This record gives sequence, structure tokens and C-alpha cells, in this order.
Amino acid sequence: MAEMELWFTEQQTPDLGFTCKITKTIYTAKTQYQDLAILETKQFGRMLVLDGAVQTTIADEFCYHELISHVPLFTHPNPKKVAVIGGGDGGVIREILKHDEVEKAYLIEIDKEVIEASKKYLPEISCALDDKRAEVIITDGIKFVSENKNMFDVIIVDSTDPVGPAVGLFQDSFYKAVFECLKEDGLFVAQTESPFYDQDLIKNVFHAVKSIFPITRLYLGFIPTYPSGLWSFTLGSKKYDPLEVDISRIKRIDTRYYNPELHKALFALPTFVQEIIK
Amino acid sequence: MAEMELWFTEQQTPDLGFTCKITKTIYTAKTQYQDLAILETKQFGRMLVLDGAVQTTIADEFCYHELISHVPLFTHPNPKKVAVIGGGDGGVIREILKHDEVEKAYLIEIDKEVIEASKKYLPEISCALDDKRAEVIITDGIKFVSENKNMFDVIIVDSTDPVGPAVGLFQDSFYKAVFECLKEDGLFVAQTESPFYDQDLIKNVFHAVKSIFPITRLYLGFIPTYPSGLWSFTLGSKKYDPLEVDISRIKRIDTRYYNPELHKALFALPTFVQEIIK
Amino acid sequence: MAEMELWFTEQQTPDLGFTCKITKTIYTAKTQYQDLAILETKQFGRMLVLDGAVQTTIADEFCYHELISHVPLFTHPNPKKVAVIGGGDGGVIREILKHDEVEKAYLIEIDKEVIEASKKYLPEISCALDDKRAEVIITDGIKFVSENKNMFDVIIVDSTDPVGPAVGLFQDSFYKAVFECLKEDGLFVAQTESPFYDQDLIKNVFHAVKSIFPITRLYLGFIPTYPSGLWSFTLGSKKYDPLEVDISRIKRIDTRYYNPELHKALFALPTFVQEIIK
Amino acid sequence: MAEMELWFTEQQTPDLGFTCKITKTIYTAKTQYQDLAILETKQFGRMLVLDGAVQTTIADEFCYHELISHVPLFTHPNPKKVAVIGGGDGGVIREILKHDEVEKAYLIEIDKEVIEASKKYLPEISCALDDKRAEVIITDGIKFVSENKNMFDVIIVDSTDPVGPAVGLFQDSFYKAVFECLKEDGLFVAQTESPFYDQDLIKNVFHAVKSIFPITRLYLGFIPTYPSGLWSFTLGSKKYDPLEVDISRIKRIDTRYYNPELHKALFALPTFVQEIIK
Repeated sequence: MAEMELWFTEQQTPDLGFTCKITKTIYTAKTQYQDLAILETKQFGRMLVLDGAVQTTIADEFCYHELISHVPLFTHPNPKKVAVIGGGDGGVIREILKHDEVEKAYLIEIDKEVIEASKKYLPEISCALDDKRAEVIITDGIKFVSENKNMFDVIIVDSTDPVGPAVGLFQDSFYKAVFECLKEDGLFVAQTESPFYDQDLIKNVFHAVKSIFPITRLYLGFIPTYPSGLWSFTLGSKKYDPLEVDISRIKRIDTRYYNPELHKALFALPTFVQEIIK
Repeated sequence: MAEMELWFTEQQTPDLGFTCKITKTIYTAKTQYQDLAILETKQFGRMLVLDGAVQTTIADEFCYHELISHVPLFTHPNPKKVAVIGGGDGGVIREILKHDEVEKAYLIEIDKEVIEASKKYLPEISCALDDKRAEVIITDGIKFVSENKNMFDVIIVDSTDPVGPAVGLFQDSFYKAVFECLKEDGLFVAQTESPFYDQDLIKNVFHAVKSIFPITRLYLGFIPTYPSGLWSFTLGSKKYDPLEVDISRIKRIDTRYYNPELHKALFALPTFVQEIIK
Repeated sequence: MAEMELWFTEQQTPDLGFTCKITKTIYTAKTQYQDLAILETKQFGRMLVLDGAVQTTIADEFCYHELISHVPLFTHPNPKKVAVIGGGDGGVIREILKHDEVEKAYLIEIDKEVIEASKKYLPEISCALDDKRAEVIITDGIKFVSENKNMFDVIIVDSTDPVGPAVGLFQDSFYKAVFECLKEDGLFVAQTESPFYDQDLIKNVFHAVKSIFPITRLYLGFIPTYPSGLWSFTLGSKKYDPLEVDISRIKRIDTRYYNPELHKALFALPTFVQEIIK
Repeated sequence: MAEMELWFTEQQTPDLGFTCKITKTIYTAKTQYQDLAILETKQFGRMLVLDGAVQTTIADEFCYHELISHVPLFTHPNPKKVAVIGGGDGGVIREILKHDEVEKAYLIEIDKEVIEASKKYLPEISCALDDKRAEVIITDGIKFVSENKNMFDVIIVDSTDPVGPAVGLFQDSFYKAVFECLKEDGLFVAQTESPFYDQDLIKNVFHAVKSIFPITRLYLGFIPTYPSGLWSFTLGSKKYDPLEVDISRIKRIDTRYYNPELHKALFALPTFVQEIIK
């Protein structure tokens, strides 16, 4: 028997593609906001694709979800109320709820079909959405943040790429709204794309956040299914500096990427990345 | 919204691919005999793929099915009993039953899952399988032909490519068995691949058939989803010569490729094809 | 040793690609008019690509060049002066000069770099350009035809696809100019793309030519490296009908596709093609 | 003008490809040992490919070359004599010679055609090969290391993937030979592939090195053009521990990735990587 050659390709840039073999399309739909697909890939297992770009896969989702969650949640000494903007797959909520002190984790997602598809086809990732500490609100994240002041200890911006609707999540106005939406000692993290392919975006976001928050840090992590494999996260904090965290205080939780000894190392930047945010 | 780049590629040769965009996999299965898939392609509509090779598509199936059916059925003056070896999609049976004089059309297919998938997902092609004049027999075509003597007016060999199980359908011993399985004035046609890429096969089959049948002819047709777009059919006949057909006798039936004026033209071969069968 | 996977893909339609393995790029250039490349392909040998589309390959060029040349040249009883519009690779000129009665064959090509590249890298195709009966004129073919009246026995329009500069070669005004450029019993042929993918073009051109020329015919041929493998040629004639040719009069020349017995068969059209030009 | 779609794909695994657009092949050759190509890619500039796998590109070569060179050279307090096994492109030699205390840097490369091609087509990478402190020896690296005892302060194993000839560079016997080839306080580094796709290799090499050297460390870095983007380096040392380096001692040199503050962070491993070498 010969296997069919069926390949999904993400055009990571106009001149570069990431192409992986699939056995079938598990689910496809045009939601109100985007093109959604759940693919069965041979290399990575089930994969969520939105508008043709890889969002998450069973094989490597732990990298992204742990990096964007535990760095801020271990930087804040007592995160009780956390909000996730975007991230309808539920992976960030799952990581957040590994922190016992968290009382409530809100998922603010505009596209309910992403949540439904994730619940149905990516249970390993969405499993915590039914937790009693989790609450799902289907709404525009930008609007939600603007309308709620002084509400959260931590906000995590788990957005898609800055094209289309997610563009607004990378604007100065949004970061100002996030500042106001946080409590007086709150902090936030946003995924900010690749230092290899998105230098201008990283630079602009860093400086925007820096002009609003007293503490601004950039940290890096490795996600093999994202363009370049090297991903950045920009953290803005009103009070707590991730580099001042007492490592011995960090409680051990069940993770596969993040560990306390790694926490500060994530902020040690290659020279070319330092240059971007100088 | 950006459409996902999902492409199916058939490696027509090790150095040449036919690649088409798909929106989803409608059905995939590993049958007892082969890898089966029904794909939704943008260019050709639904497509049946076996072991990674295109078998038929909604957009162009009429080309192949009409060419392999009407040439032999209009060459034989009175085809009452017709057998199709392979062709589980049902397209050849559908064309055969457009001939009123046909009393019974047998589909001899080894893989019942091809028939079931075609009935479920390619109804435009399989629609005649439920006709009272049609009879489906699930068995090995080589075995069936060997065990039945002097039975059919016309046999149509609608096989997959000569790799794996279908190899036996291109052997001298099979053509001898076909001769015996035909009535004393019977004739048969087999699809015999591309004159651009499969010259040795065409040559060997033509000479094998020529050594067994008094009349042997090669005709060509155009099938855009097959390698090179140019396809060959080898016809072996005990009595009737397709080139001697009285065109005025050919009844008009509902077809999109075949027409009486085309009948003899199909046998006019480009020089390089004549050279293959010399 | 593992061979590098280097593939050239022509997007034959937005949803269909023709992809072949190459070992290297022999020559690449941006001419004044188009992107030009000579590739070494494993399946077809050297290949000329213009603006990303296959023009000709060593393996299958004989198909196209013979079909577009010998049908008109054997239809006209005494072709002395022949013009080729486009076709800078020289293949049509080579075929034309196989006809001893031809006194002069003009190549009217707008892009001299195509001719130079062909001379240097495709000598098998361009070899007749230095023949004493051949004359190369670098100019806009549309302009040339408009400015020369009553000049040629046969005009062959060997154009690229109707996008960009070649668009004008598919216009009513051009066919009128061709009519005037021909002698009083002249005839012309133009390649008119695929009956599978370019039905509107074939229909429009056929009717335009039909409104200008007393005799208009469509014929088909197989070219494996062109979209669908089935290609069309539209012939407009002031006096001579290709279907009235006396086959016994056709002199044998050295060809690999065209032969006298094939001549009329090329005009026998599948039903769906008849429908296009009805 | 439309650009030709010419793409190079590295099958990073059987089910995953890295595909980038090229404008031309600058140089192709079958050397005595491997398939060599220099491609002009749109995303990364010139790229060296051996046996179909990306070795280095102008855009990102600094990542790999700095990571494999400066970590060991700043770990050893006084590296005078350094050997590079493999690495015919010259990039590691270039980085080594940024260290003033280095008196001699040897390139031990089996395939001289890699060096010649790099000198001709990748001058930015090979520029230091003509330095008076550099010496090129064309020979089998395994043999060279076995035949020279107590010779080097630092050995860098800059090999291709462990398939074909490079397999021997990942064997226990080779690491034993490296131990003997080093001076009594020498140390070595080898590139050891991806923690995502090559876990067994990393595990086996780490334990082999650990059984031979008193100090064994694994460090990581980002290389976007290598499979997964995350790459590993295994360091075996007779005396000096990279984690004990006095950062203030590290001299500033002109680099784009490596910097002193990053040195120890490179050794902070994600949990799943720690698990591999446990």
C-alpha cells in the first residue's frame, strides 16, 4: 500500500514554507471570523490551523502554553484573578489552573467556534475549560479590556498573528487599556512573534509597552511549529520584575518545558535580539 | 480569511508531480487491498485516490469512462453480456448501460470498499450500480476470468496502474484467459497507461494481445488528471475491427466526449506512438 | 549520496500545479519583457520557462512544434513565404524549413533574449535559425502584422499565454490584421490554449476568426507539459480547408508526431469541445 | 513579470519539510563524498546544501558558528591550539580566530570541494581560511584524531548529520579518540542535532561522553534553518566547567548571537531536554 501524499504548508513568509504530511482533515469550517481546520498530521499529531497558520499541535503545544503562562504567574507573588485574551484552544487556561492560588481564570475569546472545535477535537488542550475556576466569555478582547478597569492580577494575550482581527492586539492603545485593566500591581504578557522574521513588530511593541509600564522585559522560547522555531514574549509589569523573582520560592508544578532554573535564563537574549529592542 | 494550503500530490513519475489543492478529506481508509481516499479538490471536485494515485474525479471522469466503454460497445454489433474487471467506482457500468442492447453488465471488483465508498461519496459515477441489469461480484478478476469460459461479448479491463495487485492484469496469461472467457466473436479493451511514460508496457501488452487475438488495435484519448494527459487503450478482438465500424450505424447516446465521428479518429496515432507498437 | 529536492512548479491554475524535479538552473534572466529561465529537469531535459510557465522542453517540444507547423503548411498547396509571430525558441522555424517549397521563413519575436538563450542552451530547437531561408526580425508582432499587407502564405502565431504582452495576440483586431497581412489565399494558425481550462478563450477566438475568415477550424493535440495535456489550435483560412486536403499529396517529412494519416483526425473533436465552439 | 516558482525542500523528517524559494542554483556538484549545492534563496541569501540538507546560510550562519565556537573557547582559559573536525565552509575557523590567544586553528575536512565552493561562493563565511593562523588539512577527521595524541586545547566537531560518512563522528570510539587527542586540560564540543527529533542520539552521545570525560554539559541554541529551530551541543571537558566560567573575564568580541551574559543561560535546559540526558 502506498500512502497518499497530502501535505499542509504554512507560508511562514512569502519565500519560506513549513510543510507537513497529513493523513486527513478532521474538521474544517469557515467561522464568522476565520478559516478553521483541525488536521491529523503525522509528525505532530492533531493540529489546529487558523487562516492557514499553525496555532497549536498536540506534540509541541506544551512549549508555548507553559512559556506564556508560568513566567508571568511565577513573577506575580499572588495571582488570584487572571485573564487570557484569545487562546480559545484552552491551553493557557490549563496551565494557569496548575497554580493553586488562582481563584478565577477568564478566557476572553471572540470566536466561540475555536473553543468548540478544541473541546471536541483537542481535549488534551481544552480539558480545563470546564474547571469550576474557569470562565469563558465570548467577546472582543480589545473591547473587554477597555471596559474593565483595575480587574486582573495577570493578563495573558494569547493572540493569533498580527493580520486581520488580531492587529488591534498589537497597538499602543490596546496596551494602555491593558494597563488600566490590570490591578495596581498587575502585569501582562503577550506573544510577540519571531525575532528572525518580525523584528519591527517586536521593536515597536517593546517600546510601546516600555512607554506605558515601569518594567518591560522580553523573553524567548522555542516552538518548533512556529516560524523560525524561536518565539518572543513581551512582558509589561507595574511592580514585579521577572528578573527579581526568588527562584527558591517557585513551587514545582507538572510541566515539560518550564522549570524554575530556566526562569531567568529565558530573559538572556542573543545579541541580535538585544539590538532589536535597544 | 486566508485559505489553508492543503495540497495532494501524485508522484506521476519519480521526477514529476501532479499537485492539486484540496479543501478537505471526505473519507480515508486502509482497505484490505489498498489505501483509499475521497478528496474534495478545488479544480476537479471530488476525487478518488487509490494508493496515492488519482483514479477518477467528478470533473473529468466522463473522458475515461466513455472512451473505455463506447469504443468496444459500438465495435461489437450486439453486445448483450458485458463484464468490467476492476472499476469499482461504477463509471464504466454506467456508460455500458447507456446501450439498450446490453442485457447484463457485470462488475468484477476485488475490493468492495471501493464500491461502497463510490456509492456513498461519488453517486454521479456509481449511480448505475443499482440498475437491474447490473450485477456486482466481489472477487479476484484474474481468477474470475480464468474460471469462466465463452461467457461475454465484451470484457473491459478497468484496472489501476500495474503495481501491486493489478500487475497480473497486464500479463500474457491474463490476456489468454480473457480470450477464453469471451464468446467466439467477443472483444476486450484494457487501459494501458501513457505513451509518454509507459512505452515498454504498451509495447509488451500490444504484442502479447497481438499474439493471441486476430485483431489488435491501440487507441488514444485525453484524460487531464492522468500522467501526461494522453492515455492509451488496447483492444483485442476475435472478429470485429473497430476501424471497420459503419459510423452511420452508431446510435446517438448521451455522452460528453465520445461521438461517432470521433470513433475512427481515436485510432489515428502520432508517429511516436506507432513506433512503440511496431 | 542523497539528491537535493529542488522542484519547479507551474501553477497551471490557482488550484493545480505541474511540478518537476530539477538538477540546476542553467540560465536565469529578467529580460526587458519577461522572466526567463532555462532549467535542467530530470523528466524532460532542458526546459524553457517564461514568467513561470513552461514554454518548451527537449523531451516533448516536437509535439507542439510539429502540430502548429505541418497542419497549416500541408493545407496550403504551395507555402513559399511563412511568418511565425512569437516562438523565439526557433522550433516552429525548424519545422517550417522541413518543407522544401518554403522560400523564406520569418521569425517575428519581440524579445531577442529568448532567441539568444535558445541558441545558446536549446540548440536542438533553435538550430534552423541560422538557415539561409530563415530571417529573424526583432519587433512587436502585432505592429509587424498591422504594417505588412498581402505578404504571407502562412502565418503561425506561436504565442505565450494570453496574460501580459501576449494578450493582444488574442484580440479581434489582431486577427483582422492577420487577414490583411496574408495573401489572397493565405491561412493562419494560432495556439489557443486548453479546452479543459480555457473554454471562454477558445470560444471567443473561434467566433472572432469565424467572423473574419471564410474557413475556420479547430484542431487538437497532446502536449504533456502544457496544462491538461490537451492543447488547441485555431486555423483561419481564406481559401484552403484543412479537411479537404488530399492525404496522398502530403509529402513524407521527418517528424515524430505529425503524419498524413493523422492530419484529418486532429480535427475530430470530443463532444465537449464541439460544444465550446458551437 | 511573474517569478518562477522554484523551491528547495529539505525533508527534515519523512513527514516534515522545510521549503524555501530559490532564484537559481549558483553551483552544483557531486563530490567524491556528497551531493553539493550552493543555492540563491530569497529568504536566507546564499545557502550551502549537502546531500539535500541545509548546512549553512548567509542569513543565519552566525547563530551556529558563534554557538559552537565561543562557548568552548571562553570556557578554556587559554586556548592556543584549536582543531575543527568538518566545517569546510570555514565559519567556525572565522569565529575561532576572533580569539587573540589562539595561535593555530586547524580545519580537518575530508571533502576539499566543500572548502573550494565555500571560498568561491560564500566568502563571508570562508574569509578566515587564508589567515596565517589557519591551517587546512584535507583528511578523514576520525583518522586524524586517532593518530594525534595530546595535541589540542579545544576540538570542535562541526559535522553534518549522522548519516553516511559522518556517522563515525557520533560513536563512542570517536569520543575516546578525541579525549586522547586533547591536551590534559582540553575540552571539545560537538553539534548533536535537535532535542525535538533526535532524542535518542542526544541521549546516547551524552552518556558516551559522560563515561569518558569528567565534565559533560549540554547546551542549546536557535538556528532557524535547522530542523525544529532548536539545536543542541554536547561539551566534554577534562578540567574546565563552562558553568564555572567567570563571566567578567570574558572578553568582548564582535558577535551577533553569543554574549557573556548569555553563556550560562545556554545551559539552562527545558525540562523535556533534561529528561533526555538524565
